[in-house]
Amino acid sequence: MSSNHIVRYALDGLIHYGIIEDDETIARLADSPFNELRVSGARDALGSARILAPVHEPRVFGLGYNYRAHSNEVGKPVPDVPVLFMKPSTSVIGPEESIVYPDGAENVHFEGELTVVIAKRARHVPESQSLDYVLGYTCGNDISDRVVQRRESAFGCLLAGKGYDTFAPIGPAIVTGLDPANLQIITRVNGEVKQNGATADLLFSVPYLISYLSRYMTLLPGDMIMTGTPAGVGPIKVGDTIEVEIPGIGVLRNTVVAEDRSILAR
Amino acid sequence: MSSNHIVRYALDGLIHYGIIEDDETIARLADSPFNELRVSGARDALGSARILAPVHEPRVFGLGYNYRAHSNEVGKPVPDVPVLFMKPSTSVIGPEESIVYPDGAENVHFEGELTVVIAKRARHVPESQSLDYVLGYTCGNDISDRVVQRRESAFGCLLAGKGYDTFAPIGPAIVTGLDPANLQIITRVNGEVKQNGATADLLFSVPYLISYLSRYMTLLPGDMIMTGTPAGVGPIKVGDTIEVEIPGIGVLRNTVVAEDRSILAR
Repeated sequence: MSSNHIVRYALDGLIHYGIIEDDETIARLADSPFNELRVSGARDALGSARILAPVHEPRVFGLGYNYRAHSNEVGKPVPDVPVLFMKPSTSVIGPEESIVYPDGAENVHFEGELTVVIAKRARHVPESQSLDYVLGYTCGNDISDRVVQRRESAFGCLLAGKGYDTFAPIGPAIVTGLDPANLQIITRVNGEVKQNGATADLLFSVPYLISYLSRYMTLLPGDMIMTGTPAGVGPIKVGDTIEVEIPGIGVLRNTVVAEDRSILAR
Repeated sequence: MSSNHIVRYALDGLIHYGIIEDDETIARLADSPFNELRVSGARDALGSARILAPVHEPRVFGLGYNYRAHSNEVGKPVPDVPVLFMKPSTSVIGPEESIVYPDGAENVHFEGELTVVIAKRARHVPESQSLDYVLGYTCGNDISDRVVQRRESAFGCLLAGKGYDTFAPIGPAIVTGLDPANLQIITRVNGEVKQNGATADLLFSVPYLISYLSRYMTLLPGDMIMTGTPAGVGPIKVGDTIEVEIPGIGVLRNTVVAEDRSILAR
């Protein structure tokens, strides 16, 4: 299967979609990749472009406890249904953007995850056809404030602990033509490997998740499904560099900074 | 305080915002009410307009267990933090649109709720200033599949049970100049009063909820906060007409229809 690396990027004050041609060049797309994957003929220097999150203000669906080994490490039962929540669009940042460590937070964790990007409207899609609704795959980091998360989850809901601004780094590229059941996920903190998982171990597979979500709701172009994290989660602190790498996709790198409230009201 | 009834409506294939002048007339706005509340001079016949959900594909934040009497009726402890979740944008419908009763669902409930409409970006807003970030208030119905909800909540998350397409009727008008602590919420099924609550009984008040959410995330213009339901929730069935009335705002009326999968893939 041929594979394209689709990136959204800022250059000279404009935002484009493009396909990475080689180490130096992006072939600019004529339209949104959710409409048509056609190059315009223009080429941009990769080194001059700032790679953005693959979609502007997407809907982000998150999965809890979707790897048995992670459920075990946090002492939770293995779920019998997909454990779903949403991360607000405002939590999304791109590669090389800063994760803001909230003032007063006590236990914030990284979670490297395979992230699915939906191509087109999907409703009541059978599992056997659901990969037809995928544009591609990217890396995600489902940053989580464990203290807030536990307080909410005790009442059967989850939002704030996963929903802080900057708590959903996603990118760098949407990669087409991959087999979502056969990818490796590596998370490094300051260069040290903390997670090394395989999507073969997903409790609910990517085709199942798309089919399941579409039983309830219409999925939209640009929707993101963060498929859950393998074992090895752990805390982050100000100054850390977190890398989520999926070989075949690339590396999503973000650095953690302290909260400065004076600049947060954007 | 002066009060405006702002509506979004379709007329002759176009969508406008306007202010209801009287029983017969809408004064068309020159711009989105999230930019400026200024009439254009054009007037439309209310009877010819189809009133839509107040915002297109909004972010919807929902609250669980925010009235003590409702926590009691469902046998839940009164929460010590706001119990938050999101309803996907695709769940939103307007007044007079049909609630689709899902094929195979067993126990779907209405939940009449005061719904807050955010006017402008809000981050780290103190409680004392948070009403400055409100455009107005409307009626909402947080339709819930109790079977699916309970299955998810057992794992500390909530999405599918509250997130079906059509499970968030919202409208009819965004009403400005109201005191959110002094409103009555009445829900009727086929004309029979099932809920009769007062926002004075909200566990976490509207100012507190806005301030709380904005500690975590940037609230955006058009964001909706469904503030939770008072006591008296109960099942709906195909053919029912559900009305959520907040005196001073209006009546949100929707009828329940059976799912027809052939028309659902819109």
